[in-house]
Amino acid sequence: MPTLAVKHFDMLALRVEKKRLSVKEIPKLKPEGEALVRVVLSGICNTDLEIARGYAGFNGTIGHEFVGVVEKCNDKSLTGERVVGEINAGCGKCRLCLAGDSRHCPNRTVLGIVGRDGAHAEFLRLPTRNLVRLPAAIGDKQAVFIEPLAAACGILERVLINAGDKVAVIGDGKLGLLCAQVVALQKCAVTLIGKHRNKMRIVAQQGIETISPAMAGKRKREFDVVVEASGSPSGFALALDLLHPRGTLVLKSTFHDITKMDAARIVVDEITIVGSRCGRFEPAIDLLKRGAVEVESLISEEHSLADGVFAMQRAGERGVMKVLLRP
Amino acid sequence: MPTLAVKHFDMLALRVEKKRLSVKEIPKLKPEGEALVRVVLSGICNTDLEIARGYAGFNGTIGHEFVGVVEKCNDKSLTGERVVGEINAGCGKCRLCLAGDSRHCPNRTVLGIVGRDGAHAEFLRLPTRNLVRLPAAIGDKQAVFIEPLAAACGILERVLINAGDKVAVIGDGKLGLLCAQVVALQKCAVTLIGKHRNKMRIVAQQGIETISPAMAGKRKREFDVVVEASGSPSGFALALDLLHPRGTLVLKSTFHDITKMDAARIVVDEITIVGSRCGRFEPAIDLLKRGAVEVESLISEEHSLADGVFAMQRAGERGVMKVLLRP
Repeated sequence: MPTLAVKHFDMLALRVEKKRLSVKEIPKLKPEGEALVRVVLSGICNTDLEIARGYAGFNGTIGHEFVGVVEKCNDKSLTGERVVGEINAGCGKCRLCLAGDSRHCPNRTVLGIVGRDGAHAEFLRLPTRNLVRLPAAIGDKQAVFIEPLAAACGILERVLINAGDKVAVIGDGKLGLLCAQVVALQKCAVTLIGKHRNKMRIVAQQGIETISPAMAGKRKREFDVVVEASGSPSGFALALDLLHPRGTLVLKSTFHDITKMDAARIVVDEITIVGSRCGRFEPAIDLLKRGAVEVESLISEEHSLADGVFAMQRAGERGVMKVLLRP
Repeated sequence: MPTLAVKHFDMLALRVEKKRLSVKEIPKLKPEGEALVRVVLSGICNTDLEIARGYAGFNGTIGHEFVGVVEKCNDKSLTGERVVGEINAGCGKCRLCLAGDSRHCPNRTVLGIVGRDGAHAEFLRLPTRNLVRLPAAIGDKQAVFIEPLAAACGILERVLINAGDKVAVIGDGKLGLLCAQVVALQKCAVTLIGKHRNKMRIVAQQGIETISPAMAGKRKREFDVVVEASGSPSGFALALDLLHPRGTLVLKSTFHDITKMDAARIVVDEITIVGSRCGRFEPAIDLLKRGAVEVESLISEEHSLADGVFAMQRAGERGVMKVLLRP
């Protein structure tokens, strides 16, 4: 008589399968040599919305911004600790990994983005080395911003911003608001360019100038550095217009369309374009611990993981900022 | 009785007027506070061909690569001297000019390109400060390469290339051949990618690897730095493919079409794109004086200035490299 395989469906996960989004019961993850983390809170990123639309061809549990508690782990000292996690898991063997840059390992998996189930679930799995202990001073609702805040800090890994530089940040979404705050800490003059007064107010209170794209159009060739965080082709074109010769454009958004580019302008004015994706977690943790950036005002709503599909829909609506999911 | 104005037509010049190219007799230039230079030899650049097609909307005498002898000048010590000339003439008053960067002055004129008659003529005019005396060791046929060689050297003003770096140069035209030679002097491993064996042979003799675009397609993500000097959209796409994460793409050609760009690749792999146009003359003069680069092999033909229209046609033909004009 054949044995009947019994599957245990015992964790919830927000999954994309063939471009269909649903909350499902799936078998609870096993550590399999990595760390098993019970997710306490996760944040919906615009990349999640893109993935749900088919970006990167990902199928599985989405989500990569989280705070959790280590349930099982080969490093016993971490068990029970509150952690966040670096989302890129390198092979550990290639030239880049050995040089400490697993973020660019060609064989990497990326939590909820490439080949690895993500954080909008009751449990997730990551290599132990990816986990970072959280100081008690940082609450869960702040901690869930560490990954995007690290991405904003990543700008400073790529570009030297000097005190007194004129820097424009294009886009008043979550990423733009974080970038503007991080850059402003370099004691440069930051101008945030966006369309939503209510969003821009969060950073205006910190002395950051906020203007509309129409106003920005009158300030061509004024800026040393422009950070493009709007993800729109018009943002890219505006960014080029705002830079003075030998200025630097930081591309922070993964545009998903092939974007048109005025190459002659880049050559004639000797512009530099710098792609910037993720960043190291440590600077972001340090900023939150010191209370140097404001993140909780960016939270619009919190939903139960079971309502993940609705939460994703809300996150895509105009005017809604960070949406959190609680398993 | 009205006075009859008599015009003296006493110099030849190769001119573009309303996209029509012709050699004309025009009144001899007057110094007007600048230096008057008798042109000995001038070189046809691809930019000249673009301008003749209407690029930059320029009308006037074209040409910006030259060697000449100072005929009149407020600095008496320069009179009679053999010189080359920096082609950008800044306003001398703006922030950039005062910082020594008249190459990016927003009000600049550019010899034979923007608002200033150029070098394919019997005489040209430039500010005295633009002129650079030539050492006797550099012959006229070498000196005419100083401007494009300076542009190749300009790469090193913009990008740090380390000994041992893997660098690809795309395009085996005149600019590509100069760039490959200049970069190779940094003791890095240079690969020139082109379609013309006869052109590539010039640098292959110097130990530079030369391969076809098809071969290059098999070496994706291998290079630290890629210099795009082909000016074709396919060259741009290949350049991105060849770079490893955090690599640098140097744009050397002014693409005249808006070019499509895979922005997601730039962000995800944190690529840097650096526009590079002109360069300082001193490093180029030094390289020629030391015999460190080979330029005379790049000369295909020399024509009389009177045959300038024919010479321009020849310069645009496949397989023809540098074409010189002698007034």
